[in-house]
Amino acid sequence: VIAELRRLVGDGAVLDPAPAHYLGDETEGRGLHGRADAVVLPGDAEAVAAVVRWCYAHDVPVVPRGGGTGYAAGAVPLDGGVVLALDRLDRVRSLEPLFWRMEVEAGVPTAEVRRRARESGLLFPPDPGAAEQSQIGGNVATNAGGPHAFKYGVTGAWVTGVEAVVAPGELVRVGGPVRKDVAGYDLRSLLVGSEGTLGVITAVWLRLIPAPEAAWPVAAFHADTAAGCAAIARVLGNGLPVAALEFLDSATVRLAGAGFPGELADGFLVVAEADGTAEGAAALREEVVAVLAEDALSTWTPGTAAETASFWRWRDGVSLRVQAHRGGKSSEDIAVPVERLAEAVEETNAIGRRHGLEACAWGHAGDGNLHSTFLVDPRDAGEVARAQAASEELFALAARLGGTISGEHGVGWVKGGRLGLQWPDAALDLHEAVKRAFDPKNLFNPGKKRAR
Amino acid sequence: VIAELRRLVGDGAVLDPAPAHYLGDETEGRGLHGRADAVVLPGDAEAVAAVVRWCYAHDVPVVPRGGGTGYAAGAVPLDGGVVLALDRLDRVRSLEPLFWRMEVEAGVPTAEVRRRARESGLLFPPDPGAAEQSQIGGNVATNAGGPHAFKYGVTGAWVTGVEAVVAPGELVRVGGPVRKDVAGYDLRSLLVGSEGTLGVITAVWLRLIPAPEAAWPVAAFHADTAAGCAAIARVLGNGLPVAALEFLDSATVRLAGAGFPGELADGFLVVAEADGTAEGAAALREEVVAVLAEDALSTWTPGTAAETASFWRWRDGVSLRVQAHRGGKSSEDIAVPVERLAEAVEETNAIGRRHGLEACAWGHAGDGNLHSTFLVDPRDAGEVARAQAASEELFALAARLGGTISGEHGVGWVKGGRLGLQWPDAALDLHEAVKRAFDPKNLFNPGKKRAR
Repeated sequence: VIAELRRLVGDGAVLDPAPAHYLGDETEGRGLHGRADAVVLPGDAEAVAAVVRWCYAHDVPVVPRGGGTGYAAGAVPLDGGVVLALDRLDRVRSLEPLFWRMEVEAGVPTAEVRRRARESGLLFPPDPGAAEQSQIGGNVATNAGGPHAFKYGVTGAWVTGVEAVVAPGELVRVGGPVRKDVAGYDLRSLLVGSEGTLGVITAVWLRLIPAPEAAWPVAAFHADTAAGCAAIARVLGNGLPVAALEFLDSATVRLAGAGFPGELADGFLVVAEADGTAEGAAALREEVVAVLAEDALSTWTPGTAAETASFWRWRDGVSLRVQAHRGGKSSEDIAVPVERLAEAVEETNAIGRRHGLEACAWGHAGDGNLHSTFLVDPRDAGEVARAQAASEELFALAARLGGTISGEHGVGWVKGGRLGLQWPDAALDLHEAVKRAFDPKNLFNPGKKRAR
Repeated sequence: VIAELRRLVGDGAVLDPAPAHYLGDETEGRGLHGRADAVVLPGDAEAVAAVVRWCYAHDVPVVPRGGGTGYAAGAVPLDGGVVLALDRLDRVRSLEPLFWRMEVEAGVPTAEVRRRARESGLLFPPDPGAAEQSQIGGNVATNAGGPHAFKYGVTGAWVTGVEAVVAPGELVRVGGPVRKDVAGYDLRSLLVGSEGTLGVITAVWLRLIPAPEAAWPVAAFHADTAAGCAAIARVLGNGLPVAALEFLDSATVRLAGAGFPGELADGFLVVAEADGTAEGAAALREEVVAVLAEDALSTWTPGTAAETASFWRWRDGVSLRVQAHRGGKSSEDIAVPVERLAEAVEETNAIGRRHGLEACAWGHAGDGNLHSTFLVDPRDAGEVARAQAASEELFALAARLGGTISGEHGVGWVKGGRLGLQWPDAALDLHEAVKRAFDPKNLFNPGKKRAR
């Protein structure tokens, strides 16, 4: 394998032995690590196609990989195969600010996409965590979310074209710079969120929007989950068109509060962000403050754009700070109808108690999307096993509340085989038929995003 | 067939003989009309499943049908079969304004969806033409667009869940009220825009947003296509976040200008709408006026909300007024990258001249989406044939400019077999494999949305 791949893509592009960095993701903290027959870093999309063509002809599994920041082991080669890392596909192929769009290769870091847009006065709205490490290809392949998905939608909403290598090794493009297209079935949306199981995304066309002039988060601490979730419902019920609507439950605030740019209170934190023109954002912020403060222990809002940025840096670090307490965590991204959020948060904590695990939850309240988390010491096999059992209860909970087992991380390996909790058999059959249609030999990231 | 279907859904729900109304759509004006073995109007989703189950077992084609306002003959039973009309699935199953969402059955008119949202202070943004006649199920099945898709996206962007009957007659639901879901492949997006060829949509969950307080269109007439398209480019280049960005070329203004609520000029019309809060919309309108007026013959903007409404009623009637001149038209909804819009408009008129047909173009400038139109007398077979030849040139033009043969009407029968103009063979193979995966007997709307 190594020799053949070196012949195809050059000696330097095949790493042997495989560096540990390419064999895990954020699930290392719950004990998952893979092994690879080879790690390949092709230099362009044609080289990706050549690798896939060789692998498909020789029945060798391909595990596509972006920045390795996933929470579902979607890019971890748990059963071997060739790790196909997109790191070197790092070109911005075009940036056309006058037409609000760009074409970028899969390996461009998501933060770089956002920076390049911003330099031209434009916004690429998706803002999943770890944007400096994660790559746009991985974000598209998982249809990543983030806080501002509440107003602006998830990653897929911004993708107008996908270039991908599909079986048995063909480079195709569906869509492009054109903003509307209903000529074929929506293969673009199928590839978005397919987690490398239907093909390898090599580049995407993205649409952009004019950047809002101002963005003001308002943070409000509430006495408990019930009071916090009532405040969230008030924001919605008053029809306030906020850009983000986030929460941290009291346990998360205790674990990850350090560094919060305002004064910390012991309670359930709700954050709603007002954005828009300078005047529009300021006016909306006033309304948000009024609605959130009604029943709050305390509120905080930044006074400068720099403070807004520092708030979001703090928010982006919550996951890592939670993990730091025990060295590991298992964190599931269930989503529920927003009126069931309080129940989901309270049940997360109750499930933790039943399994003897420290628990907490935070996430994207407006989208009903939780990060339900159990702290573990990854060296303690018993604790890891109890966390797994607790996660199973979370999945059942999400389904029972009319929600989903995955709002934004994807299924990967961690949630494989559980789609039946929320879809009927006939839909599972279609999921599997789509997989067979795209990947008859089951070589694209096998074992990931399994329906059954 | 008639007797069996009557047994399943009741005597009154099977129309025999088939009323002409159920056998055509807007392509009657280019000579297309179908024939049906039966027209069935099931009363609920379970009855739809029963009809499909019987048809699938007996190898009888099913042609799903909404309001019959399509421009691609997607709902016309050109080869017979059972027309499955969703008219009686007309219930709003739930409207939850506090949570910004509703669940509606496929047969609810789109205008009714918008009205119900608006009564609660919310907005369902998609606004395709003929909203009083067209049904939400048909809009979802074609992923309909409309003027405000520029800011708000097409119909599919607002669908969080789809209930559909799939082969061999199973009622399934993927998604629901939850706003984010990446647990399975995006079958929701596959069904959206599938034009009844993958299953029959019976109900959808829709998300809504708080309605903007104000919306002010600004209309500006320009000397010619080049000047008008330069004005459109200025709106984008200045980063003005308008809600709609429309155009009518000079020929369209001459054909359909009557009833325009301001003073008409002989030229290329550009319309950009500013929406938002009362203050925000007013401020943006000022910027839009400044940018559009720079090089304009004249500009007009309404003074009241009633005038705004009357402008959009006029705009919605453009298609019918154009058609009225000769009794028929063939109108294709190609889309191109926005910087190629001027070329596409000029080529539309040149193609018409070459084929001896009166031509015009209007549409959604910001999305690069044209309605390239040739006027015909539907009783003149030679003219209808020349219009068909002209349309073929349009499809090739769209592909040559890096665009699509269909931006919002769908492929239906009219554009069948031409996807190869814009997709490579490997993508066409996947399109066909998806069809086989969903519909192994090729009984869902056979002959429609064909890739080859």
